[in-house]
Parts: sequence; C-alpha cells; structure tokens
Amino acid sequence: MEYELLPMISSPEELKTLSNQQLEQLAEEIREALCEIVSDRPAHFASNLGVVELAIALHLVFDFSKDRLIWDTGHQIYPHKLLTGRFPEFQTIRRKGGLMGYPNPSESDYDLFMTGHAGASVSTSLGLKAGDDLVYPGENRKSVAVLGDGALPSGVVFEAFNNAAGLNKDLLVILNDNKMGICPRVGGLAKYLDKARAAPFYNGLKRDVSWLLNKVPMIGESAADTLGNFKDAVKSFLHGGMLFEELGFRYVGPVDGHDLPSLQNALKMVKEIKGPVLLHVFTEKGHGFQPATENPVKFHTPAPFCRDDDVGVVYAQKPSSPAYTDVVSDSIHTAMSEDEKVCVLTAAMCQGNKLDQIRADFPDRFFDTGICEGHAVAFAGGMAKSGMRPVVDIYSTFLQRSFDHIFQEVALQNLPVTFCLDRAGLCGPDGPTHHGLFDVSYMRVFPNITIMAPGDTQDVAPMLNFCLTHDGPASIRYPKTKAETVERDFAEIEYGKSEVIRWGEDGMFVAFGAQLSTCVAAAERLAKDGVDIGVINARFLRPLDTETIFRALQETGFVITVEENTLCGGFGSAVLEAANDAGIRTDNIRRLGIPDHFIEHGERGELLADLGLDVAGLMKAAHEMSQKHLSSDSAVA
Amino acid sequence: MEYELLPMISSPEELKTLSNQQLEQLAEEIREALCEIVSDRPAHFASNLGVVELAIALHLVFDFSKDRLIWDTGHQIYPHKLLTGRFPEFQTIRRKGGLMGYPNPSESDYDLFMTGHAGASVSTSLGLKAGDDLVYPGENRKSVAVLGDGALPSGVVFEAFNNAAGLNKDLLVILNDNKMGICPRVGGLAKYLDKARAAPFYNGLKRDVSWLLNKVPMIGESAADTLGNFKDAVKSFLHGGMLFEELGFRYVGPVDGHDLPSLQNALKMVKEIKGPVLLHVFTEKGHGFQPATENPVKFHTPAPFCRDDDVGVVYAQKPSSPAYTDVVSDSIHTAMSEDEKVCVLTAAMCQGNKLDQIRADFPDRFFDTGICEGHAVAFAGGMAKSGMRPVVDIYSTFLQRSFDHIFQEVALQNLPVTFCLDRAGLCGPDGPTHHGLFDVSYMRVFPNITIMAPGDTQDVAPMLNFCLTHDGPASIRYPKTKAETVERDFAEIEYGKSEVIRWGEDGMFVAFGAQLSTCVAAAERLAKDGVDIGVINARFLRPLDTETIFRALQETGFVITVEENTLCGGFGSAVLEAANDAGIRTDNIRRLGIPDHFIEHGERGELLADLGLDVAGLMKAAHEMSQKHLSSDSAVA
Repeated sequence: MEYELLPMISSPEELKTLSNQQLEQLAEEIREALCEIVSDRPAHFASNLGVVELAIALHLVFDFSKDRLIWDTGHQIYPHKLLTGRFPEFQTIRRKGGLMGYPNPSESDYDLFMTGHAGASVSTSLGLKAGDDLVYPGENRKSVAVLGDGALPSGVVFEAFNNAAGLNKDLLVILNDNKMGICPRVGGLAKYLDKARAAPFYNGLKRDVSWLLNKVPMIGESAADTLGNFKDAVKSFLHGGMLFEELGFRYVGPVDGHDLPSLQNALKMVKEIKGPVLLHVFTEKGHGFQPATENPVKFHTPAPFCRDDDVGVVYAQKPSSPAYTDVVSDSIHTAMSEDEKVCVLTAAMCQGNKLDQIRADFPDRFFDTGICEGHAVAFAGGMAKSGMRPVVDIYSTFLQRSFDHIFQEVALQNLPVTFCLDRAGLCGPDGPTHHGLFDVSYMRVFPNITIMAPGDTQDVAPMLNFCLTHDGPASIRYPKTKAETVERDFAEIEYGKSEVIRWGEDGMFVAFGAQLSTCVAAAERLAKDGVDIGVINARFLRPLDTETIFRALQETGFVITVEENTLCGGFGSAVLEAANDAGIRTDNIRRLGIPDHFIEHGERGELLADLGLDVAGLMKAAHEMSQKHLSSDSAVA
Repeated sequence: MEYELLPMISSPEELKTLSNQQLEQLAEEIREALCEIVSDRPAHFASNLGVVELAIALHLVFDFSKDRLIWDTGHQIYPHKLLTGRFPEFQTIRRKGGLMGYPNPSESDYDLFMTGHAGASVSTSLGLKAGDDLVYPGENRKSVAVLGDGALPSGVVFEAFNNAAGLNKDLLVILNDNKMGICPRVGGLAKYLDKARAAPFYNGLKRDVSWLLNKVPMIGESAADTLGNFKDAVKSFLHGGMLFEELGFRYVGPVDGHDLPSLQNALKMVKEIKGPVLLHVFTEKGHGFQPATENPVKFHTPAPFCRDDDVGVVYAQKPSSPAYTDVVSDSIHTAMSEDEKVCVLTAAMCQGNKLDQIRADFPDRFFDTGICEGHAVAFAGGMAKSGMRPVVDIYSTFLQRSFDHIFQEVALQNLPVTFCLDRAGLCGPDGPTHHGLFDVSYMRVFPNITIMAPGDTQDVAPMLNFCLTHDGPASIRYPKTKAETVERDFAEIEYGKSEVIRWGEDGMFVAFGAQLSTCVAAAERLAKDGVDIGVINARFLRPLDTETIFRALQETGFVITVEENTLCGGFGSAVLEAANDAGIRTDNIRRLGIPDHFIEHGERGELLADLGLDVAGLMKAAHEMSQKHLSSDSAVA
C-alpha cells in the first residue's frame, strides 16, 4: 500500500488540517503501517490497532506541545509515534538503535515518560498537573492519562485516584476498555466493567430517568428484597460510573472508541470539566484486522506472519524450541500433579508465563490476580501460612512492584513461598522497562530467602522441587531465552552447593544462571588456546557455596563470576563479600555482569555481546585475568 | 487499680463465660493496662483504646484457634494480646526481649503475621482463606482482616478487594473507621468516608426506601440537573456502601464500635454472609481517655505521661534534643522559602516526619498522599518532569513500597527527585517491620540515583541543597536519633567527595552516615591506646569517593566501613566492588553493619551494642584489624 497521508504528518498540528474523510484514511494508513511491522518481527499489535482513533482524537482535541499525555503501560504507543513525526523511522521500531516499542522521551517531546510497568500513568499525570499548575500558573495546562482496563486494578491507580480526588485537580483519565489485559481480565473490577458493557452508549446528558423510575419498587414488599432490588436497579442505571463517582471522579461514558466524531465530542466536553474526570471508552483490541479481533491474546505480540488477501488466513511462524518459561511451567505442572499443596499465582501473565495448561488442569490451584503483583505476593504469604506451597510466577521486572511484600509478607515471616522470576536478564526488544537486571540484587537484600538460578534446562525441575520442600522462601531466576542443556554428569541439587562442571588450573568461571552454557563454550575455546579454565554452576547465591568458590580462588589462578544482573550488589558482589568476610584476598576475582546504567532495547544476543557477556567477551576477560595472574605471581598488587 | 478479670483470661475461650457486665469491666481493665504502659514508655495508645470493644467482640464471635484474624498495620494489637493470654508479660511490651508492639507469631498462635506496613491484611486474609479452603476442605474456616481507614487507600487493599470479589471467597473485612491514620486522613476516600459519618447507624435490613423516593426528581426538570441531583440523592441514601458494593463486596454498617452488643450482633450476621463482605465500624481513637480523644495525633504514640486524677491534666515529658528528622524538616523549610520550585511529598507521615510547619507555611507545595508510597514517588516523578524539585520524605522501610516507582518513574527517567529516607537504621522499639536496614542496598540497585548520608547535623542542609540543584535523582538517609555534631573544619559538599575528619597511620574508619560520631569517639579512645585510626565521612555512596578510600587502603593499614544497613549489598559492598574493579586487594577491608538476619525490637543503643556498632564494637574491630595487619605485614594471605 502507498502511504499518502502519514508521510505528511510531521507533527500533530497537521492533523487539524485534515477532513473527516482524510482522518478516516489516516486511520487506515496507521493500521497498514502496524500490519507491515508485524509481518517482519514480533511487536505489540492488537492493542495498537485498538487505539488508532483514540490517538487521533486526542491529538485533535488537545495540544500536547503544552498539554500532557501519558500512555499507561506504553505498548499501545505506535499510533502516537506515527502522529508525532516518527513515520520515517517507524520501520526501525524495536530494533537495536531504532525507535523504542514504548514511549521514549529521547525520541520526542511528545513522549514524557518511558512506561512499561502498568498503572503509574494516573500518578505521573497528576504530578504533571500539580507541577504545571505551580510552574505555569494561570495556563491551566491539561493532563491526560490513557489507562487500559487491564491496568485498572493496579493498586497505584487507586492510590492516584484517591489523591486526585483529594486535590480536586483537573485531571482526565481515559479508561481504554477493551475487555482485556494481555489475557482476559479478572477480578471484581472485571465483573464490574463487564456489566457496564450492557449499558447504552453515552449520548450527552439527555438520558431519561424514567426508565429507572419504572424500576423503583413499591413500599410494602419485604424490606430486604426492596433494598436489594433497588440497589441492583440503581447500579444498572448508573452502569459503570458509580464506582468512579464514589472515588471522587466525574464519570462520562461509555463512548465508542472507534467512532472518531463521537470521541472528539466527548473529549471536547471532558476537557472543560473541572476536577478529576474519567472518560470511559470502549475499544476493540485488534480493531480493523479480523484475525486479531477474533484472537486478541494471540495477536497481542504475535510472531511474524503473512496476510493472505485471498483467504484472509494468517500464517504464524512455527514456535521456537522450548524456552526456560516452558520448562518451568512444565515443572510446575508436574509438581502440582504430585503434590496437591502446590498452587501457582501469576499477575495477568498467564500467557507470558505459559500457564494456560495449568489453569486448565488445576483451576482450583491457579490464581491470576490481574496486574497486582504486590497483592499476589501478600496473598501467597497467606496461602503459605495456611499450609499450601504457593509458587509466585512473575517477571523479574514486574516483581519489583512486590518488593515490600516480599519483605513483610514472606521474608520476615519466613514462609515457604517459591518465586519463579521469569525474564530475569536482558529480555530483548522490549527494552529497559522490561529487562530483568536487578532481581539478584534486590532479592538478596532481605534475610531468609534462598536464592537460586538454574544453569541449564536440567537444573529447572530439581531446583523447583527443592524449593517446594524447603522450609522457607526461595527464588529461582531464568532469562527469556531457549533453555540450553550443558552436558555433564548431573549433580543433584543440594542446599547451598554449586556444581563443578570442570575444574581448570588457570582459572574458573563461576556462572550464576543461564550464562553457564556461554561459560562452557568459552572454556572449550580457551582450552584450544592452551588456557585451562574450569566452570562452576553456582546454582545458589544464598547460601553461597563458599567452600567450592574459595577453593577455586585459592587453588586456581582466578575466578570470573558471570551473571545477567547488575554488578551493583549482584552475585559477584556476594562472592566478594563472602571472600572478604573470610579474610581471603579478592584481587583475583573479576565480576562480569550488567554495568551500572540502563540498557536499551535490542536482541538479547546483540546486547550480551555489547556487554562482553558472549563467548568472545568471556574469553577476553579470561585472557586478561591470565595475563594479570602471570604478572602478579611474583609481585602482589 | 487492681486487675480482677484480665489475669483470668488465659485464652479467648474464657471470654465466652463472662456476663455482659463483666465484659464491660474487662474493657475497663484493658484500658487501664494501656494507660499503665504509656505512663512508663512511648507506646501506641490512642489506636489501642479505640479497638478494645472490637477485639473483645471478635474473640467472642469467632474462634481464632481455627478462624483467621489479621490486624492490619498492627500497632492496635494490644487488646488482642491481652485477650490471648499475654497479660502476665504485658508490661514488657516494646522492651528488648519482651513482647513486641506488633503481632508476633513467635509469641502466640493467635498472631499470624508480623504486620507493621499498612494495607496488606486483606491480601493475607484472602490468601489464608484460599489456602484453608484447600487444606481444610469443608470446614469453611473464617478469615477476618481489621483494616483502618488510614490504610484503606493503600493500593494493595484495592488489589486485594479486586481479587476477593473475583474469587468470591467468604472474606470479612472490618473497616475500623476512626477518621484518622496517625494524622488526619486525606484524599477522595477520606471525603467519601466523611460523608458516611452523616449516615444513621445501621439497624438491620429494615431501612425504608421512602426517604429516597421523596427525593426522586420529576421528569421535566432539565435533564442535567435531574441526573446530577438524582445521583447525589442516591449516593447519600446508600451512604458508604456503594463504593464497596461496586467493588464486589457486600457492605454492612456503619456500626458503633464501642457498643459491644451491637458489634456482636453485626459480627454474627456478617459471619454467615457468603462472599466478601465489608463491615463498617465507627470507632473513636483514644476512646475512654478524654485527652486522647481530644488530641489523637499527639496520643498516637505519646511520650510517657502521668495522669492527674484531680484535674485530669496530662504531663507529657519534655521533648528531647533535635533529631535528624527535625534538622531535615527545617532544612526543607528553608529550601522552600528560598526556591519556589521546591515542594515536599509525604505518605501520611506529616507528624512522624515533622512536616506540620511546612504544611502550614507552604500549603500549595505540600502534598500528603496518605499511605500511598508508590503513588507518592510516581507523583513526584510527574512533578519533577514539569520542572518542580520534589522532595519525597518517607521512612526508609515504608519507601520499600515504592521500589518499582523509584525504578520506573524516577531512576529510569533520570528525574531530579530528592528522597529523604527517615528512620534509616535501627529504629528501636517498633522492631523489624520498622527498622530501615535495607535502603542503602535497594537504592543502589538502580542506576542514576546519587546516594548520600549525612555524617552529622552539619551535613544535612548542605546535602539537601546539593540534591536540589543536582541534575538527577538523589537520596539522603538518616536514622531515628538525635542529630549529633562532629567538630571539624567543615568541608563543603562536593559531588562524589568524602570528607576526611582525621587521617590515621594505622587504619581508617569510613562511616556512611550517622555512625560518624561513633567512629570519631572510637578513634579518640583508640588513640589513647596508642592506635592511630583516622575517620572518613563518606557522604556519598554513588558516586563513591574512590580516590580517598583507595588512598586509605593503600597508605594505611586497613579500612573499616561502618554503616547502619544490611551488609548484603550495602556501603561496604560498594567499597569492595570499587576496589575489586580497580584491581586493588580487599583483605585489609572490614565491613561493619547489620548482619543478614532480621533484628528484633529494643532501644537503638542496645541493639547497636549487640551488633558491635557502638564505640566498643568499633574499637574491637580496629584492634583485630591492627593485629591482622601486623601479622600480615611480612606474609600476605
């Protein structure tokens, strides 16, 4: 398809010159550009198709060179990027060095916050509004948060609602209600919004109350029935708004999110309302592309596919070989089959964590809390206290939201909760909001938690089973990559014990986690160069296998720790601390890991290579340490 | 006063044998025991006076040897402790080795979770219920959370409500509504609950709807007015319940929380309700002790006082000398006077953080979010983005709730938010839920944050002013203790620079934070023993003053790092990492700090001495290092 209008849109100002018909065409072109991206690489898709009209309407009604706009969670940012001058680079999106798949202030002044973790948009929008009112008094700059219904249950959203109502700021929250997170929504709010679906679309303020009056019960019925029926009648009359009104917001809606004129009218109206207001917009995930509307879960971030215009069929690529995620979910499934005390909790990541089979087979022991990581962990604490063996299966980066509950409801109580930290490491094209580069450091801050990482696919099930019989909290981390197998005589998982894959006279790699296979490959290559480097599969960070690691420090030339985590307080630091506590010198230790700055998006392999965490990088480090060791053999620094 | 009934209550079972009159007497005796405690030491008071009848009623109606009860936040646990067999030890409460001032599972099976951080009780109660339904099928064990209105806005509460409604579990949440957190409540929910105060007390299900029918507007009025008026009428009719009902809870109440028979009736009724239910109970903070009801903020945790029965006057002790908290709030006040971009945010800790004067003098730039630390940080990110210079003033331990927002909304965006971490260190009798022993480690996990600690009172204002002109996020931590002054020629605060207080030939203490005065005292005592130990006021952790610290490592015998933070990933670890990165040996470094286990309650001084962080402990460490250094001068380990 030829793009006619998109290339002309260098800023949202140009939108205002287009006719309604041209705006419709523009929406078509945006959808075409979205389809073009996903024919080539995995990218967020269905959610972007759903907000095309909303993005256009927002830029038509507001002036976001002054007004403020935050797209919550951020993966639905593509139409916004196309409308703010980024069509020329659009095809670079999610590629290393290209546009980010989330808002990025370094790309455009129209992107205010890098978002990715759900729910914070109401807080930041409110902060922007409160700040703007002080910095630009009298201008009454507008502030808008676009929040998905999937993010709505996030606790921080309610905290922000509470504060916004207290401050009574002119804040606009647009509830982009597409009935979904990545997976179907769950919980009380989901039921509530489902009921709102039955309501008629909003048509200004002319709605008649006579419908309700006909429902008012007669005095004389039993009081309990009267009250119950009446409440139900009131609720269905007020359909969707009462909750938000009770929280102190003015509620307007619902509005059809694909009807551009209606959207514009509604936005113009709410723009003038004083105080916080919630505009409820119904959108369809995948709108305009039938296969996506029919299966929005599959098309949230589909594998690259081709459209066949004749039969409308979509050919998705074959799935790749099993990832750690698959191995973990299979192991959990097996454990649940064998022990009915085992249950699993996730926070709206049933699909990402590959838990569908578990949900299907063990519905009573599967708990999806929605995007509520904090609650999920505290809930797990309660279940553990009652005697269950909960497994909390959440991405490393999102578990940050639970930090205080890991502290209070699990570590402090020393309860046997097992954390499975998926996407622990560089997670690729999603970039800095999604990389899981901090969990090793943050999990070990609190006492009592046993901290582990599988070195390869064989470690996973035994490690999980170890957790499930261990008397206390434990965590397992693994990256978003295919699960490799390191050939060796497998040593059983033993509390606080590492596994020596091979011993080396010149030095030792100590891998914490999936870098093990890279270490083995590097050691093999180094052997060909005549350098004899061994490999230890650390398995445990807490308790650390000091016996084996100290032996490596004392009997070989050096130790290189390798981890896919920040070097600030990570595995290597734990080794330094242990050696220091034991009075052992540490100048023959080198720590490889993630440096102390945020890492951009790109393929995991590309990023690892840049950071010296590929085979070449490990070899280089080993050669350097060998040189240092040789030169310091006579003179200690 | 003689206690007649309390000594007989060895378990809640005994309550059930008491007459109504005896129960009233028991309530009196509990209040007397509370007054006795606070005549002797600071302790939570007004909140405990407010829940005496509620605690009695709960133990009368439920059997918490099987049913589950969580007291949210936990400082209102005293009546519960007295009713569960702990009267004999009650006078030891908050003393080292004595009863904890919060629930403590190691004291009693009736205490299920150590609580202290607000809001998680609904999650843990729901987890217990979900777990019990699986572990004890068919028993239908009850689960009850007692939640204060101060904790209600905490995001995790709403996350738990959402999940409870989704699961439709029989969960009882008791909203203990006393109109207060520690400070008066704020936000939209506060307004909402204030309105509920105007409602009549609950009298079963017999309420007539005729009152409402009289309010129903006539068709023919303007539609907008009609709808608005009608909504208002409905809201005031449903007074208090609609919000919770919309969230999927059954709402019952309000009930008078000091009317024992009414409370018991209400509890018996809600006990039988299927699905999640919220019982709204009005209590009075300080009930039964007039000075406390008149000033519940002052009597939340009052200084020890005597009652004068003749004139009813209360003599509070004189306040002690200024604490770091005072110095910080004064410094913030000065900065706000000088720069109108400076604003301050706190999370319901206006009193604890001594921010009343700031609230009074700068109401437009003071933001109390309620117990919503996550939102507070994200909100601060928004304000910083708009050009303001927000100061987030939150206790070290409670800021853990914001961990993910420190990551996404501040560090990742590199926004100039200043964190003031109060109670950073051992905070004394509150114990493990309140000690701030982890922030050094958790703040340094994320890139971009400049991390500081004042060595004494003189550092505070210059350090804050440094933050307020620094182009990026920064944090300052300080303990709950009086701010001491270390005599020296004061060196200005310079980015990444430490301050050498004195140089020592034999070795150096490097203090990160308020341990500086202890280091100086220890060095003075060591000098008398002929050991020449210097002292460095580190001031910065990130960036670390490697130049000065490496010089100490290379030119003196040893370095002892001293911090009031966990040794896992703390300041000492940062020194180890830096030395290791530079290839410098570290066996002449010793790290003093908090070991890797949770620390019980007790006076800060007692605890520091136990942990070797007093003058004697520092001297001992220095002597040991001196010996080691002497013995290793010829033979390096």
